[in-house]
Amino acid sequence: MHSSPSCSPGCSSSCSVSLPLSPLSSNGRGSESVSAEEKREVRNPNTASDPSGMASVLSFYLSYLLLLSLSVCVLVCVSVWSSDWRGGFAWDGSALQFNWHPVLMVSGLLLLYGNGAVLYRVPLTWGQNKLPWKLLHAGLMLLALIFSIVGLCAVFDFHNKKKAPNLYSLHSWIGIAATALFALQWVFGAGVFLLPCAPPRLRGLLKPLHVWMGGGILGLSVAACISGINEKLFFVLKAGPSYSDLPSEAVLGNSLGVLIVAFGLVVMRILSNQNWQRPDSRPEDLVYTPLLQEENE
Amino acid sequence: MHSSPSCSPGCSSSCSVSLPLSPLSSNGRGSESVSAEEKREVRNPNTASDPSGMASVLSFYLSYLLLLSLSVCVLVCVSVWSSDWRGGFAWDGSALQFNWHPVLMVSGLLLLYGNGAVLYRVPLTWGQNKLPWKLLHAGLMLLALIFSIVGLCAVFDFHNKKKAPNLYSLHSWIGIAATALFALQWVFGAGVFLLPCAPPRLRGLLKPLHVWMGGGILGLSVAACISGINEKLFFVLKAGPSYSDLPSEAVLGNSLGVLIVAFGLVVMRILSNQNWQRPDSRPEDLVYTPLLQEENE
Repeated sequence: MHSSPSCSPGCSSSCSVSLPLSPLSSNGRGSESVSAEEKREVRNPNTASDPSGMASVLSFYLSYLLLLSLSVCVLVCVSVWSSDWRGGFAWDGSALQFNWHPVLMVSGLLLLYGNGAVLYRVPLTWGQNKLPWKLLHAGLMLLALIFSIVGLCAVFDFHNKKKAPNLYSLHSWIGIAATALFALQWVFGAGVFLLPCAPPRLRGLLKPLHVWMGGGILGLSVAACISGINEKLFFVLKAGPSYSDLPSEAVLGNSLGVLIVAFGLVVMRILSNQNWQRPDSRPEDLVYTPLLQEENE
Repeated sequence: MHSSPSCSPGCSSSCSVSLPLSPLSSNGRGSESVSAEEKREVRNPNTASDPSGMASVLSFYLSYLLLLSLSVCVLVCVSVWSSDWRGGFAWDGSALQFNWHPVLMVSGLLLLYGNGAVLYRVPLTWGQNKLPWKLLHAGLMLLALIFSIVGLCAVFDFHNKKKAPNLYSLHSWIGIAATALFALQWVFGAGVFLLPCAPPRLRGLLKPLHVWMGGGILGLSVAACISGINEKLFFVLKAGPSYSDLPSEAVLGNSLGVLIVAFGLVVMRILSNQNWQRPDSRPEDLVYTPLLQEENE
């Protein structure tokens, strides 16, 4: 569970925005920080009559289309590399088992994670009850975590069967740190923001930490991907054309790295644009939901 | 020139804050987006009588102390690695010339860059004219850029004298992209935000791009550092103890990578905390400065 719905990494829902504003008194639910409670505003970005709102929605969807296109390109690149250049997939302790590692880590810790993080920014979801989207956010992140863990199992099992050491390279240190932090983030996020255990005030206090950790884990994930691709290309491009000759496989791997970086930048752009934040302070979102304390976070 | 003074990566100066607020009418200078002009607020975070303001300032300085400590640790680590484990420095085309590369890139593209980016967040600077701090921000970033370019020259010259190819690895692609984007960002930042060429309205429109690019370049820099350290350790730890045996040099290099990641996370945390943004809307900052159009951006 990465980005909280109403906040970019750098801006809580107390931000004022460039869309139509109207003051709203405190809702008395105490789900945000004291400062946010003191001054809350409502925006209506989907207002068809507001040209700047429409332009904001249009520019969001263009960015979102770019994000989805990059997601497809990254997935195709890493899959083609593993299947066509590296021989395909198996779970038998051979090099074919290793091939699951890049595909699953990139699919989980990067693509599902990044797409799950920007879910609340899709304007189509804004007029609706937040709880289903919160559950979808948590579900996507859980799927991303499962993919990552299975991806780690693939390489650990491959190493163990080869009697090769685990967890010595910086790539592995960063990758395992990213996955461990992601697991902590998911448990922490579900416990605080989904289940009814935590008081709303605690949610407000912990949200900035959740948002910052979410962005940090994405950064760790990108760094792990780049170092992993770089390491793999040096490993496999020794006999025959070497990496420094830039054969087709090297160009494919490097291009995959560039696409991954572009994906990370677009996710951060979407999360950091305050005009694209879910307008959680809208009156229809302020209805109390006893079951899961669906608050305005 | 990375982060604009009043904005974290995810929040422009239109954010409301948890510190004492008072309404301020538009200053009529048009230096921010239309939305921000419509609704502006003043905060006084250094107000000694406000406990939450004091707590915010105290927590900033603790984070800043952590950032400075990490900066020293990273600098010591990379310098000791190059001098004690890799034989020291020279500019003669030998491996000793290569040793300048990690030290200069880490010093410039990471440490100076990150410290320059958080400059405006230091509360001690808030009650003063912004222009000197803007010049210092630009100066630090220029120094960071010069360090990075000399660091690139070191490795290009080393490769050329060895007749080894340049720019084939993913590490080199990410590193050169980070430096090129940084150079563009500096020129763009100086042209738009420092010199009097750009109209204030354009500054307001371009600031989110400047802030997003600033964070993105830091992310690229961290990814380039991690992949470079990983690659170097595989290169040099072959004969004798290999990387997988985790000799002292491997532990030092991996620790350097972990410290670099921690540094990047702390910079992003400082930039994204809206309570630590420079209160640019304070009346004393709104005085018109004809020379460089020192506006409230």
